[in-house]
Amino acid sequence: MAPTLNLKEPTGNQSSWETLLPDFPKGPLCKYRKKASFNWKEMAVLLDGEDIIQLKNRIFSALESDPLFARCPGEDLCREKYQELTFLRCKRLFEYDFLTQQEIIENPLKIFNMVICIGMYDWSPCLQYFLHCGVFAGTILSASERFADFVKQVYSMEIFGCFALTELSHGTNTKGIRTTATFDHNTQEFIINTPDFEAAKFWVGNMGKHATHAVVYAQLYTPDGQCQGLHSFIVQIRDTKTLLPVPGVMVGDIGKKLGQNGLDNGFATFHNVRIPKENILNIAGDVTAEGKYSSSIKQWRLLPYLAAAYALDYFSKSLFENFVEFYAGLLTKQRSQRQADLGREIHALSAASKPLSSWTAQQAAQECREACGGHGYLAMNRLGEIRNDNDPNCTYEGDNNVLLQQTSSYLMSWMNCIRDKAPFESPFGTINVLQDYHHILGWKFTAISVEDCMDSSVPLAAYKWLVCYLLRESDLKLSKEKQSGRSDFEAKNNCQVYYCRSLAIAFIEQTVLQRYHAYTHDPNIPSTLQPVLKNLSALYGLWSLSKHLAVLYQGGYASGEQAGRFIQDAILELCCRLKDDAVALVDVFAPPDFILNSPIGKASGELYKNMWAEILQGSKALNRPSWWAEFCINKPVIGRLRSRL
Amino acid sequence: MAPTLNLKEPTGNQSSWETLLPDFPKGPLCKYRKKASFNWKEMAVLLDGEDIIQLKNRIFSALESDPLFARCPGEDLCREKYQELTFLRCKRLFEYDFLTQQEIIENPLKIFNMVICIGMYDWSPCLQYFLHCGVFAGTILSASERFADFVKQVYSMEIFGCFALTELSHGTNTKGIRTTATFDHNTQEFIINTPDFEAAKFWVGNMGKHATHAVVYAQLYTPDGQCQGLHSFIVQIRDTKTLLPVPGVMVGDIGKKLGQNGLDNGFATFHNVRIPKENILNIAGDVTAEGKYSSSIKQWRLLPYLAAAYALDYFSKSLFENFVEFYAGLLTKQRSQRQADLGREIHALSAASKPLSSWTAQQAAQECREACGGHGYLAMNRLGEIRNDNDPNCTYEGDNNVLLQQTSSYLMSWMNCIRDKAPFESPFGTINVLQDYHHILGWKFTAISVEDCMDSSVPLAAYKWLVCYLLRESDLKLSKEKQSGRSDFEAKNNCQVYYCRSLAIAFIEQTVLQRYHAYTHDPNIPSTLQPVLKNLSALYGLWSLSKHLAVLYQGGYASGEQAGRFIQDAILELCCRLKDDAVALVDVFAPPDFILNSPIGKASGELYKNMWAEILQGSKALNRPSWWAEFCINKPVIGRLRSRL
Repeated sequence: MAPTLNLKEPTGNQSSWETLLPDFPKGPLCKYRKKASFNWKEMAVLLDGEDIIQLKNRIFSALESDPLFARCPGEDLCREKYQELTFLRCKRLFEYDFLTQQEIIENPLKIFNMVICIGMYDWSPCLQYFLHCGVFAGTILSASERFADFVKQVYSMEIFGCFALTELSHGTNTKGIRTTATFDHNTQEFIINTPDFEAAKFWVGNMGKHATHAVVYAQLYTPDGQCQGLHSFIVQIRDTKTLLPVPGVMVGDIGKKLGQNGLDNGFATFHNVRIPKENILNIAGDVTAEGKYSSSIKQWRLLPYLAAAYALDYFSKSLFENFVEFYAGLLTKQRSQRQADLGREIHALSAASKPLSSWTAQQAAQECREACGGHGYLAMNRLGEIRNDNDPNCTYEGDNNVLLQQTSSYLMSWMNCIRDKAPFESPFGTINVLQDYHHILGWKFTAISVEDCMDSSVPLAAYKWLVCYLLRESDLKLSKEKQSGRSDFEAKNNCQVYYCRSLAIAFIEQTVLQRYHAYTHDPNIPSTLQPVLKNLSALYGLWSLSKHLAVLYQGGYASGEQAGRFIQDAILELCCRLKDDAVALVDVFAPPDFILNSPIGKASGELYKNMWAEILQGSKALNRPSWWAEFCINKPVIGRLRSRL
Repeated sequence: MAPTLNLKEPTGNQSSWETLLPDFPKGPLCKYRKKASFNWKEMAVLLDGEDIIQLKNRIFSALESDPLFARCPGEDLCREKYQELTFLRCKRLFEYDFLTQQEIIENPLKIFNMVICIGMYDWSPCLQYFLHCGVFAGTILSASERFADFVKQVYSMEIFGCFALTELSHGTNTKGIRTTATFDHNTQEFIINTPDFEAAKFWVGNMGKHATHAVVYAQLYTPDGQCQGLHSFIVQIRDTKTLLPVPGVMVGDIGKKLGQNGLDNGFATFHNVRIPKENILNIAGDVTAEGKYSSSIKQWRLLPYLAAAYALDYFSKSLFENFVEFYAGLLTKQRSQRQADLGREIHALSAASKPLSSWTAQQAAQECREACGGHGYLAMNRLGEIRNDNDPNCTYEGDNNVLLQQTSSYLMSWMNCIRDKAPFESPFGTINVLQDYHHILGWKFTAISVEDCMDSSVPLAAYKWLVCYLLRESDLKLSKEKQSGRSDFEAKNNCQVYYCRSLAIAFIEQTVLQRYHAYTHDPNIPSTLQPVLKNLSALYGLWSLSKHLAVLYQGGYASGEQAGRFIQDAILELCCRLKDDAVALVDVFAPPDFILNSPIGKASGELYKNMWAEILQGSKALNRPSWWAEFCINKPVIGRLRSRL
């Protein structure tokens, strides 16, 4: 069973907590701290134990007292300087040598905490240090004791290591690795070779600027031409005295990433580089073969966002046309009731469509980033820039959650008309669905097969019910809150989560779908295009709706196992039907290559060629770092600063 | 009703599409393009119309042919250079003058498309241009025709404008704005004043380096000392001949952001700056008063992540202890069945907990970023760095979705034992829940009040059912796929989405909750800490479970409106109970200020003081840009490059 961590240890007493954990500086948070039901110091001691807290204090104060780790407000460090600083900091970690072997053996959790402490300061030097001392040295040590002397050089930083598994066109799928190691019987050597640039080792941390040696994974070929599967080898890649590449190795930096830019991720190609046979690490191939993976997930991950792009693009244009009508009224100083109504409706629509579209874009960018794997994390491919440039849309001109309140207030304002059975309508007709409020609340999910769900009329009907239901629930909740004596402000507050917020989101999704459904079902759409547009409309509708499935069940619109399954299966079936159209659908709205400026996204689809070209076009990709003497000559004295701790 | 955009226009014919839209370069995507069910050019013409496509082509090719807009692969532009380049590009947009007034009036959608085209190239120059020509000039124009001459100077770039509404400590809530404009009857002037640094205008686009004039929102005070509410004024902030600040104005750049770094967002304080009374823009206060907003949403947004931090922190430590046990077996060359079982279980747990924790961290960082509003987007507050540094955790050592497959395969491997009613268990006991598989499938949600749901035993029981149910569903789906003649690989593929993936996520959440529930309910926990820990456990469990609510209904574990409401209300109630403990709970695990290095997150809570200090510590915050002559002397000739289009 799970261990009950630390519970064997006493949590000490108040006087020991006080010396271990100083008080926080006075300030506006004092009054909130006083409200706490418990003593935070007692909690900290319970969770970590005194021993770990002392270790943390030791590491944190060492870093804070060391000018090499000083923070510089407002400094705009270029990437190269940041890499240099990271290396110097990594070297300093050797001099602190925070934990002895003995301490680690006595309490292995200490190493876990040490990594976190240094990582919280900055993950770049932390990863550089642990890729070298942990991953590189660890892999070699666990292979055989005959490398003990070699590993000593690792710990004294005579050499600097990296772990080279992934290749430019092969990531998670280790079976696809194409670097070869051919055994030459005559010279008793292995010949390491990269067949083409797509098999270049890629993404390897520490390889970009610093590593002198790599653990390289390659397919082993015996003299009979048989492939014996994936094996690992120690291969020298740079001269330890000069940090220049050894003959046959082309090695460099893969360029800026979305984060962790102090760490030098690199690439390398091998042109028949010979290594002694002793450099093989594992006799039997011991890399877990991980098999083939589903690619269908990616299509399922991205196709709904493609459908959302079409539906939201149409909606934004139609809303802009609405706005032009409203603005024309403003310019001609219209003071009619209709002009006032237009203003309210436009405001309610835009206040909810900004959250919907900015969040959808944010999630889509993140999903694309993850679907592209590591390459999505390379700055050159611009998925990070797109995500980061979109991010403020979630905030400016009003925080998304605040804006949603304005839309739900607009919707709630119609409840009086509904209750009084008074006639009502809005200029653009977006709230006219509420005219049938009582009737719609009686609707049920009626599809009896997956095929039944393949048109956007199905999610549209469900959305109409959803809007009416959430309006009723929000209204009920508000009355209840008011009856219990709460102020208007408090009552409104307590209705936000799960009620008004969901109402505003459901309403705007319903409106977007309503318009896109009408557009895609218009008889004037060319018959050559209508089928794919209808599929997009259905996919967008069902996928959006699926996030509200719980409410559909909860409110009794749907019941039984089949309803949910139909919706899910219909989404998968639509993804399947749209699969072949996916590239062409992107072609329709993709900006030219020059504008997109993303090697992974260029229209030709030659992503590896494009990325490889762009990396080599970088003027400093293959440079030796200007601070090479900091590795080659000024070696750290291990543990020199230990006495300062 | 919604307009049916463009449907009145003919979509032209194939020969016109061909000249309008060139083919894509040949490459690996050709074969996918051939599979499309429609002609992408016909679709593009349908969606945009030929007129808009021509406009897009014109803008795109102008930018691509202009060396000022050239892309430089691998270039690491410092922020200052990027701001200079952005300004030069913005100036160039005046020289292209892509759209005439006449064209905009004839088809307002053109302005919409122009903004998008330039923005797709880079949002920084695009926003700079439109904040000046659109927002600044538009606000002034719509106020009164008496500013017509002034606006002419805007369009010829004699002056450069910005729109100054938000203040350092007031964003969305416009009622909270504290800059004052006091009317001096004697001199017939307004005196603009900033009462203290928290009322500094802040986040204002174009203000950081370039703007000479600002539309400033301030509370208007009449000589009788009465506040007349929010009004707007034109205030000069820099000399147009030198770009140096005018007396009484301190103006500068707010520093690096997560994105859009070409744009110079700035701050300004006013020390009794006098402006002529004619500079008031609106006679009656016409800024929409937006009232007070719920702050309860923020607590609801962030408290579940705080609970998740506690539960996942405990889980990661316990998993590390499991790993130490396994690793000890490796080092001592254990070859027992137990050692092999340990390996499989550790692998299944770590393969699913990495996705769970990296996604939770990613969402938490984004949520914190949004909850902090614009200030969360300032690089100095480090929410972006934390998010970006965490991001690769979603990818390396295996894409999250691929890893989840490994966990679900492990779980599915126990189905034979379950079917054969053979006894089974795993070393750490995490799959022992499946021993009662048949029994658990008959469980129901039995809580009959919100109070009933306030302990983590309730979500834990639901999770046990959920794991068994999703295992059954995944197994059924797999059999069905195989029966229909699909290969093993295809069959497994088709089971991922909604089945195996959900199974793996539910399993790991169940395991995390199981361990945290056991820990928090251990009688050895000090009674002073147990109540808050139990609340965290319940909140984490219910909040995680609420994302599976649809499945609970679908599979019949829950039914009726009350079940979902109880869970939602219990989450809100737990957030409410934990509210007063929130700061202390953060205090327990927060790293020291030096390590966190985030002015908004410092332990004192003096966020505005800390941010203000850090901005002024930036060495170039108040500098005149080195390229000032590009504004003051080299004026653009409006439309000069039009003939090139």
